[in-house]
Amino acid sequence: MALNIVIMAAGKGTRMKSALPKVLHKLAGRSLLQHVLGTTSALPAESRIVITGHGAEQVEQAVAGPGISFVRQMPQLGTGHAIQQVVPALKGEGTTLILNGDVPLIKAETARRLVEACDGRALVLLTIDLADPSGYGRIVREGGRADGHVLAIVEHKDATAEQRAIREGYTGMMAAPTGALKRWVGQLNNNNAQGEYYLTDIVAMAVAEGVPVLGVAAPNETEVLGVNSPLQLADLERRFQREQADTLLEAGVRLADPARFDLRGRLSCGQDVEIDVNCVFEGEVSLGDGVRIGANCVIRNASIAAGARIHEFTHIDGESAGVRVGEGALIGPFARLRPGADLGAEVHIGNFVEVKNSTLAKGAKANHLAYLGDATVGERVNYGAGAITANYDGANKHRTVIGADVHVGSNCVLIAPVNLGAGATIGGGSTITKDVAAGELSVARGKQVAISGWQRPAKKR
Amino acid sequence: MALNIVIMAAGKGTRMKSALPKVLHKLAGRSLLQHVLGTTSALPAESRIVITGHGAEQVEQAVAGPGISFVRQMPQLGTGHAIQQVVPALKGEGTTLILNGDVPLIKAETARRLVEACDGRALVLLTIDLADPSGYGRIVREGGRADGHVLAIVEHKDATAEQRAIREGYTGMMAAPTGALKRWVGQLNNNNAQGEYYLTDIVAMAVAEGVPVLGVAAPNETEVLGVNSPLQLADLERRFQREQADTLLEAGVRLADPARFDLRGRLSCGQDVEIDVNCVFEGEVSLGDGVRIGANCVIRNASIAAGARIHEFTHIDGESAGVRVGEGALIGPFARLRPGADLGAEVHIGNFVEVKNSTLAKGAKANHLAYLGDATVGERVNYGAGAITANYDGANKHRTVIGADVHVGSNCVLIAPVNLGAGATIGGGSTITKDVAAGELSVARGKQVAISGWQRPAKKR
Amino acid sequence: MALNIVIMAAGKGTRMKSALPKVLHKLAGRSLLQHVLGTTSALPAESRIVITGHGAEQVEQAVAGPGISFVRQMPQLGTGHAIQQVVPALKGEGTTLILNGDVPLIKAETARRLVEACDGRALVLLTIDLADPSGYGRIVREGGRADGHVLAIVEHKDATAEQRAIREGYTGMMAAPTGALKRWVGQLNNNNAQGEYYLTDIVAMAVAEGVPVLGVAAPNETEVLGVNSPLQLADLERRFQREQADTLLEAGVRLADPARFDLRGRLSCGQDVEIDVNCVFEGEVSLGDGVRIGANCVIRNASIAAGARIHEFTHIDGESAGVRVGEGALIGPFARLRPGADLGAEVHIGNFVEVKNSTLAKGAKANHLAYLGDATVGERVNYGAGAITANYDGANKHRTVIGADVHVGSNCVLIAPVNLGAGATIGGGSTITKDVAAGELSVARGKQVAISGWQRPAKKR
Repeated sequence: MALNIVIMAAGKGTRMKSALPKVLHKLAGRSLLQHVLGTTSALPAESRIVITGHGAEQVEQAVAGPGISFVRQMPQLGTGHAIQQVVPALKGEGTTLILNGDVPLIKAETARRLVEACDGRALVLLTIDLADPSGYGRIVREGGRADGHVLAIVEHKDATAEQRAIREGYTGMMAAPTGALKRWVGQLNNNNAQGEYYLTDIVAMAVAEGVPVLGVAAPNETEVLGVNSPLQLADLERRFQREQADTLLEAGVRLADPARFDLRGRLSCGQDVEIDVNCVFEGEVSLGDGVRIGANCVIRNASIAAGARIHEFTHIDGESAGVRVGEGALIGPFARLRPGADLGAEVHIGNFVEVKNSTLAKGAKANHLAYLGDATVGERVNYGAGAITANYDGANKHRTVIGADVHVGSNCVLIAPVNLGAGATIGGGSTITKDVAAGELSVARGKQVAISGWQRPAKKR
Repeated sequence: MALNIVIMAAGKGTRMKSALPKVLHKLAGRSLLQHVLGTTSALPAESRIVITGHGAEQVEQAVAGPGISFVRQMPQLGTGHAIQQVVPALKGEGTTLILNGDVPLIKAETARRLVEACDGRALVLLTIDLADPSGYGRIVREGGRADGHVLAIVEHKDATAEQRAIREGYTGMMAAPTGALKRWVGQLNNNNAQGEYYLTDIVAMAVAEGVPVLGVAAPNETEVLGVNSPLQLADLERRFQREQADTLLEAGVRLADPARFDLRGRLSCGQDVEIDVNCVFEGEVSLGDGVRIGANCVIRNASIAAGARIHEFTHIDGESAGVRVGEGALIGPFARLRPGADLGAEVHIGNFVEVKNSTLAKGAKANHLAYLGDATVGERVNYGAGAITANYDGANKHRTVIGADVHVGSNCVLIAPVNLGAGATIGGGSTITKDVAAGELSVARGKQVAISGWQRPAKKR
Repeated sequence: MALNIVIMAAGKGTRMKSALPKVLHKLAGRSLLQHVLGTTSALPAESRIVITGHGAEQVEQAVAGPGISFVRQMPQLGTGHAIQQVVPALKGEGTTLILNGDVPLIKAETARRLVEACDGRALVLLTIDLADPSGYGRIVREGGRADGHVLAIVEHKDATAEQRAIREGYTGMMAAPTGALKRWVGQLNNNNAQGEYYLTDIVAMAVAEGVPVLGVAAPNETEVLGVNSPLQLADLERRFQREQADTLLEAGVRLADPARFDLRGRLSCGQDVEIDVNCVFEGEVSLGDGVRIGANCVIRNASIAAGARIHEFTHIDGESAGVRVGEGALIGPFARLRPGADLGAEVHIGNFVEVKNSTLAKGAKANHLAYLGDATVGERVNYGAGAITANYDGANKHRTVIGADVHVGSNCVLIAPVNLGAGATIGGGSTITKDVAAGELSVARGKQVAISGWQRPAKKR
């Protein structure tokens, strides 16, 4: 039976006080609308239709993809009006699932339960049981029984005291028989104070026609919370982060503080991974068995092999090129790995060292205050404190090749392109502009001269 | 009608276990007493009188300012005794508002409500409704009615079971008719276990005289909480920080985690500002439209223009000179901007770079491991990795001037005062002591020499 | 009367999903089992016996020490079976205290109360009163009185509705008369669904014999919570950290945010110490009067003298050698102090500076981008930006000695072993390989040469 999924995403979100359309605001690194689209991709739908309006072009561009179509609602005259626009695009006689682009954390399982309860025949409302459902429309059920058919949704402001005592509220999401839905929304009117077409008016139509109206309760409030303000967005972000932290803990990852953990993407972890306080992970990150991440690290798009240790204050950002850290490597504190840093096993990268687009073979070390860019570094190389690859001549980037077992002295500059043969040694303070043969010592520095009788400058007044 | 504001600030604060007088302890970067003085500055008072005692000199010095006078209470014999000292300084026949120097978060609006309710005629107590008012003196009202006149304040320890069930407590703050207050405090005695003069005894005097005693309830507990211990101070700090975070969120600022945000001063934000987790702002900071602040930044006294991006682990401290970051600039990670750093549009300051008292024109870049101090840097300059301005000769600071489009190679030292003409190029590893003409290449380095047959040192045993 | 302490530590901890035996997982830097052993060291016991099983060798090796013996339980057939194994090792006729190796936060005072209540005569159960004791075995007392003798422990699943209403649960810890305990565990059987021997079956035996069975309630849930999953471990970690934070606040230490404070070891603080948000302390750390620690610092095994100021993003790790910071020193931001850094009074270590195994005398400064390793630095030395001690020749480490008042210029390399006499000056950009006499200026750099007509490289296509 055909399933249409409709996602309402036309609203402006005035309370966000932003130039960005509301559904494009990000939660855990992805837009609200992407969250909903990602969830619905788990359902076998004939069509996934996003209703756009405010910032329509921007929204459509941001989430365009296979199987996703867009219908514009201009102007925005209410939820019923939104569905009226989408009617021509609805396929078949099965079920239409209506979700909200600003309710990002609905789970696929919950959506599936709505669709199954509908089964192309019933009108199914997603509801939520709350100790305090203030503000929600109340679900009035037959005989007041929890399993009774739904008779009406009564808005909070219109509810009697008795109705206000009902703890089940309407979440704004539903599944409906597609044919009936088309018919119903055609009959909506806007005879109300706001002059809007309300989708919820179809409940009365269904009841009048004898179509069963069911209420399916969401498992928790987080799944049905909408984002209307930065405060609500921040609240939902923290709920989502805590959920992710709990999932990782459940899988055996040790987090020093689940309330100080942020994951904006995907983190896959081996056994016995430890993550200290206040770390942020973004994009795709994988951590092998026994990896330990120190406090205050930021890690994006990186793959870190078993046994590696990432010390505090390490910043790793692989962007699209990725970063690879080998087994047993020691990184940080205060290290920065940039795109294309590809570190072999047991590599050491120490404090105030930056590595970009460079390959370091097993056991190579750059422990202090150094820069390695566009370099190929052999095994066991010792890259001294303050050493720098001058890889950019102001117009082009060039490569530095450092053979195995080379020692590069402190504060050396290697002016690329340049090649240091295996086992070469570069004296401290040298600027190397020409290739160095294997095993050779090269030095490029001025002679040390003592100037006697020299007077230090005096403080000027 | 004349308003006197009296702030009690004589207490020692033994439980703070500090050498600092209690009211000088800081909450969000300002002393408790400064918070109260700041709040009262919004009220049109004839006089603002601070009652000092413990550490009187230190307190008076710390908060002295126009319109603020001090009265010393030595020794400290209770709240009534404190007000007795202040009697000669009270002006006119209007209202006297009595606040506490260790209750920092009282709002001006609440203070104003007290003053208006008093209107020079009634004794008005600031009260608080709490689910659990243990420890607070209970407000006994006529007929037990919420709007009844106050008959008495009954101390927790003296209260009957029925009185303990009262949820309204006295906060220690009040407004009183100035004339009556003077008369009442003159009649106080210290016939009690502590041998102290209690200000609250004036309630009975007012009731006896038929002066109406009113209770005005504070809108929330945070406004009336006092600080008696570091634990209470930390609790109040977090409440205040959360309030500030909520205010920013309300204004459209996106905070990744409102519980990990600290503002000790004033932060003004344009539209679509994003602030990641664990940032600290101090002093005066302004962020233009679309500014994004990465995780773990510390920013003090700085102005950051629209579209600038401050990456993680950036430390900006303008102290009194300020720091300015231009539109679309990219700063960090691991960058440090110090006082007088004045960066133009699209400037890039990268990792392990320090900038102090320097002007960088549009598009200048210092991306890696560098120091710029007392420098003037032209447009599009590329300041290489490891380059350093030697601005200090041990006695005086000198200026380095770098023209537009100059390229400074890696690990160069520019010994100030020195002038690099526009378009000049400095070879990597050079120490520059003399001016360089525009467009010229300058190099100052030793010749590269290969030493064959050299043996590396062997490990000594 | 002889006291035996038995700690059950044989369990696998499947839900930890770890290769590490459960009791070796760490809470605040010490294993769960070490916490319990540390607590029991405050009690005067004849013997402390750890029952090991899963990962027995690893556990035994990890906690071996004077007065600690081990008994292996192989296979693990229940708590009663565990105690059966330990019977031969129990000494005397006094009391046996039974604790759990995965319940780390039991306090010595609570353990002592159990032992005293037992007094070699009663069976004493440690209980806990909870609003919701779901999952706990319920303590059924004589006449339902809070002070009645215990009649039985009823498992949650076996409890009647009435019994489930009991809020007192059994924690798994007890003290028993040693002789009776030996007799009772000999009579246990495993006629139950799991085929295990349950220690709790001895309650019925004691009741049958007329031995008084007492319940002693733990003061709070934290003391009796066990660790069975990473989630529970993280929860207990936060409870413990909050307790430690409160203890420090109580002592007068000012913590900016008690929820963002981690101590894994011991922190001793003088008066008026301030610690900003998100700091981590490990090992043994002492902070003198008035020390201020900025946000996001990590400090291990260090002693910081009065008045020193540690700025944000400072990383101090003394490992076994320790780090010493003198009075009034200024460190950071972005400084790293490594083992053997021994800084005198008023030393300044600035951004991107690393110090290792070096002594700096009073007033010495290394403010920018520098490395000091294996160096002895005199009073008032100014160690320039980018200066580096080349202390490692690839095989051995050598010492650099810098006399008082020496100025080392920017980007200098000091190739150790080398000695700079008092008052010497080293020109910027110099590589120093030979000793420098006191007061002398030494320079080792190439001559500055201008190359006219040089063309910059063009961008290749």
